[in-house]
Amino acid sequence: MNPHEPLRVAVIGTGRMGADHVRRIDRVISGARVTAVVDIDAGRAQALAADIEGCTAHTDPAAAMAAADVDAVVVASPGPAHEAALLTAFAHDLPVLCEKPLTPDAASALRLMEAEQALGHRRVQVGFMRRYDAEYVRLKALLESGQLGRPLMLHNRHRNVASPPFFTSSMLISDSVSHDVDATRWLLGHEISAVTVLRPTASAGAPEGLTDPQFVVLETDGGAISDVEIFVNCGFGYQVQAEVVCERGTARIGDGRALVTHMAGRWGGTITQDWTDRFAQAYDDEVQTWVDTTRRGEVTGPSTWDGYAAAAVCEAGVRALEDGGRVAVDLVEKPALYR
Amino acid sequence: MNPHEPLRVAVIGTGRMGADHVRRIDRVISGARVTAVVDIDAGRAQALAADIEGCTAHTDPAAAMAAADVDAVVVASPGPAHEAALLTAFAHDLPVLCEKPLTPDAASALRLMEAEQALGHRRVQVGFMRRYDAEYVRLKALLESGQLGRPLMLHNRHRNVASPPFFTSSMLISDSVSHDVDATRWLLGHEISAVTVLRPTASAGAPEGLTDPQFVVLETDGGAISDVEIFVNCGFGYQVQAEVVCERGTARIGDGRALVTHMAGRWGGTITQDWTDRFAQAYDDEVQTWVDTTRRGEVTGPSTWDGYAAAAVCEAGVRALEDGGRVAVDLVEKPALYR
Amino acid sequence: MNPHEPLRVAVIGTGRMGADHVRRIDRVISGARVTAVVDIDAGRAQALAADIEGCTAHTDPAAAMAAADVDAVVVASPGPAHEAALLTAFAHDLPVLCEKPLTPDAASALRLMEAEQALGHRRVQVGFMRRYDAEYVRLKALLESGQLGRPLMLHNRHRNVASPPFFTSSMLISDSVSHDVDATRWLLGHEISAVTVLRPTASAGAPEGLTDPQFVVLETDGGAISDVEIFVNCGFGYQVQAEVVCERGTARIGDGRALVTHMAGRWGGTITQDWTDRFAQAYDDEVQTWVDTTRRGEVTGPSTWDGYAAAAVCEAGVRALEDGGRVAVDLVEKPALYR
Amino acid sequence: MNPHEPLRVAVIGTGRMGADHVRRIDRVISGARVTAVVDIDAGRAQALAADIEGCTAHTDPAAAMAAADVDAVVVASPGPAHEAALLTAFAHDLPVLCEKPLTPDAASALRLMEAEQALGHRRVQVGFMRRYDAEYVRLKALLESGQLGRPLMLHNRHRNVASPPFFTSSMLISDSVSHDVDATRWLLGHEISAVTVLRPTASAGAPEGLTDPQFVVLETDGGAISDVEIFVNCGFGYQVQAEVVCERGTARIGDGRALVTHMAGRWGGTITQDWTDRFAQAYDDEVQTWVDTTRRGEVTGPSTWDGYAAAAVCEAGVRALEDGGRVAVDLVEKPALYR
Repeated sequence: MNPHEPLRVAVIGTGRMGADHVRRIDRVISGARVTAVVDIDAGRAQALAADIEGCTAHTDPAAAMAAADVDAVVVASPGPAHEAALLTAFAHDLPVLCEKPLTPDAASALRLMEAEQALGHRRVQVGFMRRYDAEYVRLKALLESGQLGRPLMLHNRHRNVASPPFFTSSMLISDSVSHDVDATRWLLGHEISAVTVLRPTASAGAPEGLTDPQFVVLETDGGAISDVEIFVNCGFGYQVQAEVVCERGTARIGDGRALVTHMAGRWGGTITQDWTDRFAQAYDDEVQTWVDTTRRGEVTGPSTWDGYAAAAVCEAGVRALEDGGRVAVDLVEKPALYR
Repeated sequence: MNPHEPLRVAVIGTGRMGADHVRRIDRVISGARVTAVVDIDAGRAQALAADIEGCTAHTDPAAAMAAADVDAVVVASPGPAHEAALLTAFAHDLPVLCEKPLTPDAASALRLMEAEQALGHRRVQVGFMRRYDAEYVRLKALLESGQLGRPLMLHNRHRNVASPPFFTSSMLISDSVSHDVDATRWLLGHEISAVTVLRPTASAGAPEGLTDPQFVVLETDGGAISDVEIFVNCGFGYQVQAEVVCERGTARIGDGRALVTHMAGRWGGTITQDWTDRFAQAYDDEVQTWVDTTRRGEVTGPSTWDGYAAAAVCEAGVRALEDGGRVAVDLVEKPALYR
Repeated sequence: MNPHEPLRVAVIGTGRMGADHVRRIDRVISGARVTAVVDIDAGRAQALAADIEGCTAHTDPAAAMAAADVDAVVVASPGPAHEAALLTAFAHDLPVLCEKPLTPDAASALRLMEAEQALGHRRVQVGFMRRYDAEYVRLKALLESGQLGRPLMLHNRHRNVASPPFFTSSMLISDSVSHDVDATRWLLGHEISAVTVLRPTASAGAPEGLTDPQFVVLETDGGAISDVEIFVNCGFGYQVQAEVVCERGTARIGDGRALVTHMAGRWGGTITQDWTDRFAQAYDDEVQTWVDTTRRGEVTGPSTWDGYAAAAVCEAGVRALEDGGRVAVDLVEKPALYR
Repeated sequence: MNPHEPLRVAVIGTGRMGADHVRRIDRVISGARVTAVVDIDAGRAQALAADIEGCTAHTDPAAAMAAADVDAVVVASPGPAHEAALLTAFAHDLPVLCEKPLTPDAASALRLMEAEQALGHRRVQVGFMRRYDAEYVRLKALLESGQLGRPLMLHNRHRNVASPPFFTSSMLISDSVSHDVDATRWLLGHEISAVTVLRPTASAGAPEGLTDPQFVVLETDGGAISDVEIFVNCGFGYQVQAEVVCERGTARIGDGRALVTHMAGRWGGTITQDWTDRFAQAYDDEVQTWVDTTRRGEVTGPSTWDGYAAAAVCEAGVRALEDGGRVAVDLVEKPALYR
């Protein structure tokens, strides 16, 4: 790539998230343009491409990645399609921003790690966008400053207004808690060594049969405890909060209280209803960072290893949910490429 | 008085505030009992006395103060009756807790100061209860610590849900802002030298003809500016807030946010609806302090001078409201007794 | 007792808590006076009694309770002495305010329940003062209003600046978490059915060998999960916080942010350093309530059953701490007297 | 302009603000590129241009605006140079984003309004970036929703850590309060009809001779009062806060409390030290909006009229500061083009 030219990006998958990345690259951030969109629904890809100067529509990811005007790839297709798309990108040695989950299970994530190691250099940035959220970034910086001493406990709250119809009890772990798993690993710099899932009475507001909320306890190899309340039908708003308890103090993010009103006997404000509000800027910063580093020939951010570790922890979590009790997490040794 | 015996108190005036002081002395605080209640409405005084062992009912304050079993007096009758009641108390050399206003105008306050000086010692504690509120006390202590440097500005907010039917535009100054006048004088340790009253459009929620809200600017002899928003028909709650701006920082009280809820798309809490909630503890502490100091033969707290200064400032404020523009405040020289 | 006369109280134990109760009854609250103080250290009891008109000093609790001028008893001696003192009080049919813990173990608590049932009426109010704290009271009222739906989870934070020298790892459960156990039972109206204790890395700020912090997970017979972070050497302040998560919303208390400053690049305020600050008013209200109800011949508040349940849960908690894993709590059937 | 091609922008003035706009257009936002930079310091312009593909450097604004590859202009030169630059832009009918102040005085702003009216269409967006700040935008939307009723009062706080060496007492009005003037006009939808400036004792932290802080009272033609505390040497942080008081409630922005720590006896967080932190996103959104609307052939945002009104109010404010007392603001009738 010529670092003076815009990065030419193929976006694979044009569902809600993929279409949003197309809009972001086309109209919000700097230094990149969308030259190809891919969807198994040809009409959808064409409709999206029609609005963008010099953008072609495809139904086959491989065809898009083989095009001469593609420098880099955003993978936003469903999780089960990620492995094939990433292996094709590796075959063309293309840098990839891969939406989470990297893959739906630890075994396929391991295969991707091996393929990337065979290339000899990192190619993948996984879409754990909380690492680009201004509040998480400040919290991470504070922890690294050492002011508060060593982190001992992390309390996470993760609440959604309502879950989509297809959501299952194990998806609370693999789709939702996976973000808290990555946040725990990243903030603390520890790997997770065991998972326990507690099941309070299901809320009357949750669909019949869904185990919602759940209370997840993560133990880390650094001796910390990270608890996660996941509640995907809380009804009142979207909230992601984290409070870290260290040897000399605590720090908390996620209250989000910019506009305070007083009226009708109450003070307070509105609660964000959706992750698109809460994390819009984080997504913009994530993609801008990916574009900037890719144009400089670098790969940074959450790696294939991070995608693998999250998959392994979530697998253990789903087992803990189903069987009760504590489930240990066994990770392979961390390859040199990811150290 | 025998400091080992409870203080025997006559309460003059048994309206809302007087009756509340009777309850407070009888059932909440320590070291005092009510031995006489006085009201021009004989039935009301008798009904109150009937519930209290050893308490007599009167219609004449002088008779109550002449009784052998009265050590001290609480004056909670309407403001115009205060001067006569206090002079009678002075004649018996009885310590007095006098509800605000000390008197309705500066001239009568001056006469009381002269009478008290003739006694040669302080006898009066004026009921500016904010001086006993835990938040104001902490703010005062912070200012006196010098940590923030000299105070330069004070922003006061004073809001009521609704005003009583008899409330007039000038009573916003003399009944309501009088508290902020005392708070400004006490917090800053300055006298007020000029008053300006601005009149925003009256709220549609205010009774026809009432100038509500008002925005009052107080200038002090220490060079500070204290602004007061008074809004007695704000509709949503009772709020008393103060933010002091000093050379090196600011401090703010009055947000009162103990219980925070998140529901139905909103976070926040309820707003106190009444001064009885907001200042209940301040009143208890005020009266307990008065009982304790009186039993030790001491007089502390807001003095007759403070009552006079408030009356003089409020007189100027009412003139500023009526005439527009800035009105200077002229105080007599401060007598030695009050220095 | 004559409800028009002050309640005459014997205070047993004059350590920090007992002496504070003497001061409270003598100088703060209404309707009671201290007529006897008891301590095995005769000099200490005498010194305290000397300041109070009509108060005698004793070394034997039984002698004090036999005196003609004693209507009621406050037990503030060390926990192991409580059983004997309470049985003596029962023998005289005296109402008792008993500091927590009721007794140090479930077996002795059971014996006391039997003795009280033999009397045929309640005589004991246990000193779980959080039930009298204004914030907890508001939270309880909110839960009972049903506005938020059923409670599903409760997150508790309990932090002390530093632990006293004699504090052991199991005392984090039996002395500290016991408050959160009672708060959980009272707020949710559930009994606790199982306890798990997780042990994060001990803080460098904790004394050598002390397991501090601990993370305690309580399961209730109503299907709720209540987690407690207990950290008795957090170094930065005293904090008691509770966040309840219900089907339709959450509610949080304990932030305590009355005075907010902005200076030197930081906004914020001070953190209470001690429970005496945080809960001073709760103690006053607890004892005033006890005096008022006792004078009316009633017994309310936390019962012997509540003392027993807390003891049983804490016993299970200490076992969970020592053995690891989840320990079930087995309570006897609740006697009719306590329903 | 071809709306499918990036907007080609000339940036006039490459001081702190101009250079930041160059960076923003080149590396942050979408849809525009910098094709010319202009500065009287030729070396500075060349250094900036050297980093950007296809960007030329100039010392003469007119030469840059005459270039074939310039579609639009950002004016970020010193205020006195704005009139000439804008008239040149009008001569080429180029759309302009003009940093505030539009011009340093009302007379020159009037001349620009006449010139723009002669063109027959709006060409200028003035850089009042608060209108693009997410919190101000939410506050404006809330006011327009009518939920709170009519606005009656607006309390503004505007604090800087320290003023630059060249800052004069009148610049507190013309450079700093000018933002609050525009925010007041925009939020309330009123014009300002009179200004009063009060001068508290100057802070010991302010340079010798500087009247800092000042307390400014703005009266509007809609009957509202807007007070502004301006304090440019507060020492502790950069703060912009606004609280609007309406007939049925209040709303407040600017507390900015994303990360809360508890340590060493204090809770709280850091205060932004600079407007670049506080308003970075507002600037990005302002310029992105300008680029997007310009590519569509539209002009939105603060107009030349808004620049003129701010200049007229600030002129009156400086007179009020110098002479004392209240100074009325006389605006010309609003031309049809700006209605």
